[in-house]
Amino acid sequence: MTSAPIELAVSTVIFALRPAADSSRRTVWLPLVRRIREPEQGKWALPGGPLEPDQELSESAAFTLNETTGLSPSYLEQLFAFGNVDRSPGNRVVSIIYWALVREEEAAEAVVTENVRWFPADDLPELAFDHAEIVSYALGRLRGKLEYSNLGHAFLGELFTLSTLREVYEAVLDRRIDPANFRRQVETSGLVRATDQVQTGGRHRPARLYRFATPAASTAPTQE
Amino acid sequence: MTSAPIELAVSTVIFALRPAADSSRRTVWLPLVRRIREPEQGKWALPGGPLEPDQELSESAAFTLNETTGLSPSYLEQLFAFGNVDRSPGNRVVSIIYWALVREEEAAEAVVTENVRWFPADDLPELAFDHAEIVSYALGRLRGKLEYSNLGHAFLGELFTLSTLREVYEAVLDRRIDPANFRRQVETSGLVRATDQVQTGGRHRPARLYRFATPAASTAPTQE
Repeated sequence: MTSAPIELAVSTVIFALRPAADSSRRTVWLPLVRRIREPEQGKWALPGGPLEPDQELSESAAFTLNETTGLSPSYLEQLFAFGNVDRSPGNRVVSIIYWALVREEEAAEAVVTENVRWFPADDLPELAFDHAEIVSYALGRLRGKLEYSNLGHAFLGELFTLSTLREVYEAVLDRRIDPANFRRQVETSGLVRATDQVQTGGRHRPARLYRFATPAASTAPTQE
Repeated sequence: MTSAPIELAVSTVIFALRPAADSSRRTVWLPLVRRIREPEQGKWALPGGPLEPDQELSESAAFTLNETTGLSPSYLEQLFAFGNVDRSPGNRVVSIIYWALVREEEAAEAVVTENVRWFPADDLPELAFDHAEIVSYALGRLRGKLEYSNLGHAFLGELFTLSTLREVYEAVLDRRIDPANFRRQVETSGLVRATDQVQTGGRHRPARLYRFATPAASTAPTQE
């Protein structure tokens, strides 16, 4: 046990959907940062850093997101505080975790540097501290929340076909979904509304474009 | 702005269902603590205190719950970290908020002291700091989560009648629910299962006893 002050850090789990390495099927990816200092030097970790005294929690998370990827957050939400006494060797660190969801075209523009690399969520390297547990928790929340909210919005543009929406669900839930069942469920859910526009081009017949019935919601309080 | 270390506190919103002061209808109540020190001396606040260096986050919340009410938590979950730069005058405090749900018969046994008082959630006194916002956020989460989970479990014993379950929903959602509609929705939801036991006694005919289909779930990670 230490009598030093408890350190407060903010880290961010950044999720994007990208094609899997071995197919065109999309899966969930996230960027990690290689640690260049002890403890846990050389291991991969979630991007983050200590909270500055004059920095809002969400500002700290947005700063990290920008520093790691060059992106600005379109969906950024506080997830959970991880604070086990023994989670960091030598000092007590409580990490407040945010998650950011990034559209595929945004992720494609992410800056790549030597010590930042994107990994598929189902094939991660060894992570520092309890970050594997944090990623696993974030994935569980992502999957759970997709099922009862319009969270998928964060991965899509304003207009999308039902095929594209299904691909988001397939990527996040990591399983095939029957197209006819999916169409039926989505259309009765009231989650999306058909527009009078269609998507043309490609080898397929024109596909109806949809939009979400309500704006992307966040469960975060209004503060920050 | 301050250059002192950021202080980390843990506070707990403790919800119980109790009869309203003017009727036998149940509503949501919570205990508050009168502040005996500056800042905000004399105002009512959520029970809580600074995190000790060798104390797990959930231990701190459980300690607070016990100190305030004499109760041990049956449902205790981390809710959100509130950390706005200006939320506490003079120093930067980040508060990790837990919520505890307490059964009515437990709440009836809660210890009462001079500076601890229970208030109905819809008729609170002026609260210290941003605690009114925290309570409002917790109430929103309570209502939201009741609708898509077996959270109601936390307010009930193992076996209950559908009338009792409906009273929990009415208390939390603060509106009357049609008994026939409620019975139909609950029976098709798969959330509860009928047992072969009935509740007898009283002026009414025997009522079927139900149990939840799955144990009370928590979205908290396994750590702590």
